[in-house]
Amino acid sequence: MRAVLLAAGEGKRLRPFFDRPKPLVPLLGLALIERNILALKECGINEFVVVTGCYSAELRDYLGKGERLGVSIDYLHNPDWKLGNGVSAYTFHQDYRRDEKFVLLMSDHVFEPDLLKAFLAEAENVKQDELLLAADSRLEAVYDLDECTKVKTRNNYAVRLGKGLDDFDAVDCGLFIGTGSLLEALSSSIAGGAYALTDAVNLMAAQGMVKLHFVQNSWIDVDDHQSFKQAEKVLLKSLVPAKDGFISRTFNRRFSLRITRLLAPTAVTPNMVTILSFLTAAAAAVSFALTQPFLGGVLAQLASILDGVDGEISRLKFLRSRFGEILDSILDRYGDYLIVIGMVYSWYCATGHTTALVAGAAALTGMPMSMLFKEKFQNVLGQPFTPEIHDGIMRYFPANRDGRLFIIMLGGILNLLPAALVLLAVGTHLQTFIRLYNVRKSN
Amino acid sequence: MRAVLLAAGEGKRLRPFFDRPKPLVPLLGLALIERNILALKECGINEFVVVTGCYSAELRDYLGKGERLGVSIDYLHNPDWKLGNGVSAYTFHQDYRRDEKFVLLMSDHVFEPDLLKAFLAEAENVKQDELLLAADSRLEAVYDLDECTKVKTRNNYAVRLGKGLDDFDAVDCGLFIGTGSLLEALSSSIAGGAYALTDAVNLMAAQGMVKLHFVQNSWIDVDDHQSFKQAEKVLLKSLVPAKDGFISRTFNRRFSLRITRLLAPTAVTPNMVTILSFLTAAAAAVSFALTQPFLGGVLAQLASILDGVDGEISRLKFLRSRFGEILDSILDRYGDYLIVIGMVYSWYCATGHTTALVAGAAALTGMPMSMLFKEKFQNVLGQPFTPEIHDGIMRYFPANRDGRLFIIMLGGILNLLPAALVLLAVGTHLQTFIRLYNVRKSN
Repeated sequence: MRAVLLAAGEGKRLRPFFDRPKPLVPLLGLALIERNILALKECGINEFVVVTGCYSAELRDYLGKGERLGVSIDYLHNPDWKLGNGVSAYTFHQDYRRDEKFVLLMSDHVFEPDLLKAFLAEAENVKQDELLLAADSRLEAVYDLDECTKVKTRNNYAVRLGKGLDDFDAVDCGLFIGTGSLLEALSSSIAGGAYALTDAVNLMAAQGMVKLHFVQNSWIDVDDHQSFKQAEKVLLKSLVPAKDGFISRTFNRRFSLRITRLLAPTAVTPNMVTILSFLTAAAAAVSFALTQPFLGGVLAQLASILDGVDGEISRLKFLRSRFGEILDSILDRYGDYLIVIGMVYSWYCATGHTTALVAGAAALTGMPMSMLFKEKFQNVLGQPFTPEIHDGIMRYFPANRDGRLFIIMLGGILNLLPAALVLLAVGTHLQTFIRLYNVRKSN
Repeated sequence: MRAVLLAAGEGKRLRPFFDRPKPLVPLLGLALIERNILALKECGINEFVVVTGCYSAELRDYLGKGERLGVSIDYLHNPDWKLGNGVSAYTFHQDYRRDEKFVLLMSDHVFEPDLLKAFLAEAENVKQDELLLAADSRLEAVYDLDECTKVKTRNNYAVRLGKGLDDFDAVDCGLFIGTGSLLEALSSSIAGGAYALTDAVNLMAAQGMVKLHFVQNSWIDVDDHQSFKQAEKVLLKSLVPAKDGFISRTFNRRFSLRITRLLAPTAVTPNMVTILSFLTAAAAAVSFALTQPFLGGVLAQLASILDGVDGEISRLKFLRSRFGEILDSILDRYGDYLIVIGMVYSWYCATGHTTALVAGAAALTGMPMSMLFKEKFQNVLGQPFTPEIHDGIMRYFPANRDGRLFIIMLGGILNLLPAALVLLAVGTHLQTFIRLYNVRKSN
């Protein structure tokens, strides 16, 4: 399936804030249109048609033939872009292939990747004379309702659309799966002097041809500076994964998302952050060994926060790599090991107690058990281990990495390294046994 | 899809060796017919029809309605079983459901589970008037070729079948996917006084209706004491998994398969063996700590061998469980940990060298890295990590568990614990880095 991106408009309201056309405005490290292309690429779409108008040359210069993004991009130009976005959409008839289904979207809308995934999964059910429209019926959650195109719905079909509609129960997200019938409707409505895409959709709605897909994730029509900021918020929020532990969810992400926001526009890669997180953990270990527990504790927590940033940047900028994922989990283990060894060294040098060695061995062996268990669980049960679901009440027990490093931070800043080590030693193994018991019970 | 098992014959030749009907002869812990039912159950088949003849009551008593095996079993009785197995197969017409496809097999044949899986995967391509026959064209590998029904083939179709055929290029494995057309052919051939299943198959072959599936795994027609022994061999050999390390493949399995053969007829479960393997590792650790390195080394190797037995029994007797798989990998890690701690304790008590602690910490942290890497690899790349494939020349490097415990055995029996610990410390981490490098290179 090909995707058609409408990028012909002038985008006046955002112009004062950026020195470039709206589709090229950078949002968290990616131009708006670039983000849509990469998000659709993750859904398996590799061929794109960009309809240009006002800033044709700038768009072509920036995106080229798509080599940089690993996709193929063709361009269609609409000299009459001022008439309305229906004329831009209709330009695609020049390139339309008989019986083809295509995705049509506004290049300046921002969608959560999961929204696009769910929408495209419906493509195969769209019939040849239908149009599928992404609609949002969660009206209280829609951003800037006034500016939206409203939709009156009946039984998952659109009855009528319009910006000024009084009686409505959803809004149009600017995302469609179309067939030749949409181009025919556009042709009719343009011939009748109605130049907006909504006019053609209304024609089809009147004949019961506009099926609705109700979205469950966030999207923003980036129109002005305020909606731009809102889009930033929505995207950052979508980066928190379901598998997060309690401390990460309630504490670390407040900081990691801010760091991600700062790093997104730079060339810093997820793997660089992974290595930085590891080096920070190593610095924490050295601090503990040099009897600077407070600094060690703070650095350990910083390593924990940075451990979230690599994943956030990779999801945000579509930079996920298999190597990166594996590197991250291996270096995390080495970071854990070094920190525990630094703590034990500090305790043992200060006291000479064998207890330090025993607790150290127990903590050292306990540190990787959480990951071991989770990875094995996923391979055996075919679903990721999610502490929020699978750990029950134990999810508040800090034995996932976020929790372990939190204990280490507390041990460091309160100068209670022995207590922290004993807690780690007991907690990690205890958690493993409880998880084993839970699997036994439920399988 | 239902499966029809022919279990009507007398099985004279095996009778002197066992006091029960041939389908109920126990082979490595499961009656022949029971093994076929459980193997098909793993392929998703839950409804069975057993055609009885000579020993009807014994079969019904043993299998019941299938509750014990977690399937549903119906019975059909063929009082004329002496006439031939075609009459038994035709008995199924009493219970045949219009347009149904069914698997038909000899209950006294032993198939590698992978053979059944591959065969059943073809079921959906069988047309309503076709018969699919599993055939083996690897004639040099076929056991007791003289006794087999030969098949003359052309373009994946059977032309002619018969025990005495001179011109043939495959043999019949006694495994079919049939439709109503097979029952019609049986009816015709029986009416013509030809009572063998092969007679009906020949009728269909003459009309080009017998499609062939060429098997790639082993199977045995268990007929006499010799083929019974051969079936044991084939099944035991099939238990060695692809993911085996070098030491396991070349050394451990020689012993573990023998232990499995001994334990298979008993009620010992895979989880019991998992725990026994862990306790043996713990005993090795205690031996090292009590300065009995020779005994420790031998016990460590025994733990390694037992670590193969749990999986073998679970595959052999269809006892795989999710809990069992997770328990195994967690207890293996604890076994590793205890052994290293025992070795370090012994070294440190004897010398007081800090080197012992450093090497110990390095070995302790290195022990779980191999599993961590492999599990993560599988989750990220969607394919199991197979040392034989993914480790390249490093597959001979003993850093998988079989190799690590082999080093420990050598360290124990040669009284070189420090050398073994240093080798473990260096080897495990080195392997992890090389694996990371390999992933980087190829992804």
